[in-house]
Amino acid sequence: MTSTEASAPARVADPGEGITAEELQLAARNHGMPAEALRYDLTPVGLHYLLIHYDIPAIAPQEWRLRLGGAVDRPLELTLDELRARPAASRTVTLECAGNGRARLEPRPISQPWLVDAVGTAEWTGTPLAPLLAEAGLSPDAVEVAFTGADHGIERGIEQDYARALPLAAALAEDVILAYEMNGVPLPPQHGYPLRLVVPGWYGMAQVKWLTGIEVLDRPFEGFQNAVAYRLKVEADDVGEPVTRILPRALMIPPGYPDFMSRTRFAKPGEHLLTGRAWSGWGPVDRVEVSTDGGLTWADADLGPLGDAYAWRSWRHRWTAVPGRYELLARATDRVGHVQPVDQPWNRQGMANNMTQRVAVVVG
Amino acid sequence: MTSTEASAPARVADPGEGITAEELQLAARNHGMPAEALRYDLTPVGLHYLLIHYDIPAIAPQEWRLRLGGAVDRPLELTLDELRARPAASRTVTLECAGNGRARLEPRPISQPWLVDAVGTAEWTGTPLAPLLAEAGLSPDAVEVAFTGADHGIERGIEQDYARALPLAAALAEDVILAYEMNGVPLPPQHGYPLRLVVPGWYGMAQVKWLTGIEVLDRPFEGFQNAVAYRLKVEADDVGEPVTRILPRALMIPPGYPDFMSRTRFAKPGEHLLTGRAWSGWGPVDRVEVSTDGGLTWADADLGPLGDAYAWRSWRHRWTAVPGRYELLARATDRVGHVQPVDQPWNRQGMANNMTQRVAVVVG
Repeated sequence: MTSTEASAPARVADPGEGITAEELQLAARNHGMPAEALRYDLTPVGLHYLLIHYDIPAIAPQEWRLRLGGAVDRPLELTLDELRARPAASRTVTLECAGNGRARLEPRPISQPWLVDAVGTAEWTGTPLAPLLAEAGLSPDAVEVAFTGADHGIERGIEQDYARALPLAAALAEDVILAYEMNGVPLPPQHGYPLRLVVPGWYGMAQVKWLTGIEVLDRPFEGFQNAVAYRLKVEADDVGEPVTRILPRALMIPPGYPDFMSRTRFAKPGEHLLTGRAWSGWGPVDRVEVSTDGGLTWADADLGPLGDAYAWRSWRHRWTAVPGRYELLARATDRVGHVQPVDQPWNRQGMANNMTQRVAVVVG
Repeated sequence: MTSTEASAPARVADPGEGITAEELQLAARNHGMPAEALRYDLTPVGLHYLLIHYDIPAIAPQEWRLRLGGAVDRPLELTLDELRARPAASRTVTLECAGNGRARLEPRPISQPWLVDAVGTAEWTGTPLAPLLAEAGLSPDAVEVAFTGADHGIERGIEQDYARALPLAAALAEDVILAYEMNGVPLPPQHGYPLRLVVPGWYGMAQVKWLTGIEVLDRPFEGFQNAVAYRLKVEADDVGEPVTRILPRALMIPPGYPDFMSRTRFAKPGEHLLTGRAWSGWGPVDRVEVSTDGGLTWADADLGPLGDAYAWRSWRHRWTAVPGRYELLARATDRVGHVQPVDQPWNRQGMANNMTQRVAVVVG
């Protein structure tokens, strides 16, 4: 068996094809945030979504170093203590997997089969990246910055350490940090211990975990995760546009209580305060609309205060429920004018599908 | 729509039927422990397996009370502070879901689709249960003790707070605790905050989370989770034996590195130290065997020291790998004489399937 046999090309599910054993393996490792956890301003560790391409690496902090090199005047090598001694900053950031919503697409791209729950919000603490890059001295030819993690694997036949590059301007944004704490404690192993990149507003693929290397490039990065994965393609041989910032999404805490197997909700007739969160990586969410009739009519929800620039915003909407069967929807609009679609924005790799959530509720 | 329509009877998958949308919903909420996390003596929060029947309840600790009543002389009502002021005990315990292994059964019972990863080991700290029961004064007629949690839902048409009973002798065992800490910090919301039951050696269904009530019974408990769920049935109308203690299982840290999609492992030729953990709820694991040829031949692994009675035990086995394709297996035997089967112990609800793990590895 060659690596090509065990690391097959991407494919799209056949019509009616159930979730495959391989998708299930990924779903058992990686996990979404249970919708009721939208109640927490900061997602408790263990409820925040998690997507790990390969294995969680075992890293001995004393031996670990961050190497910053490439198109710079003075390459740097830093210990964790040296990074912790630098100026610190904390940012509350909502992170979302670029593949969130993939398993709701028809036909379904075969990969990590996310429904709507690959999200979480944490307070990340670390040291800003831009001053480090300035200290190293950027070459005038610099155009991108590549970030490499310690997780190692093979993907569609290509053996790699997970690596992703950002355009130079995005890497230099003042809110980008190298984070060593999550919600006030050292990063848990699964969230990138001892150090990860946090790029507020961008989908999760940019938030490189278990960071070991930063390389300033004088040419566009050609690594797998930028050049092949994380692109919006319709046909398999399209080049596709790169996936970048998070498109708006609203989620609601499902009202009532669930059936174990179907997760259908049961609620009593009367007043229900529907609540949830909404976010966008393109700017503040300034509208959330709710439909309690499957999307026929919409009403504006009340919005909570704005917090950190890329942290989710709370919303609430009063619903007077009479007996019957309902499908509840909530959709967000951001200040730039992106509106969450009710119909699927299909693409071949199942990226950035922010199609509106639907919550089935039986009132009686 | 009636609750019966939305809360259907259990069923078994048709031959070749893929994982259903409902199973995927459960897999996205609940999650296993990634196999590489077997490296940690204590599973970090967020990597420990999690199975939540309904929703994670929101509990305000100041308003929360534990009520202990039923067939006792002096019913008790206790605050969290009062429980924390009582004598404390810590136990390192391996917990495993009774449904672990379900999705590997053929035909597949439709429920939470676990593969082999629904396990984790934590240090639980709390106050022993037996002295509390003694303080309340057990009736001479007492035969069982029922434990009720705050999580509320509907399951196969029956609305309920999650509740499970133990035989009196099991509830009085000196190692049973009411735990308020996990790995030295207050319980995370998803693991039962503010208080949960920990019954070392028993499958997860006994470890009632978000505990609100303890009722001493003078008759067998007839609640859904004891009388219907968590029983070993072959036919749908069998009464079935109750699921109790954890059958032995060994798991290995998959060697080499993975392919993203198939999770097939790739390893270099040469010496590999295969390592993992093994546990049983019936007594110490005193044998682990490893096969590197798909189960044709077996060799004894070296066992690590015994720890707490129901904590997993480490094992290691040296493997000299030459190029080829392999299926690695590890199986445990406990002191009582239970041996992990290589063939499936099928039952209709997919309970206690401790069929041996198989790890596909390409050496080259």
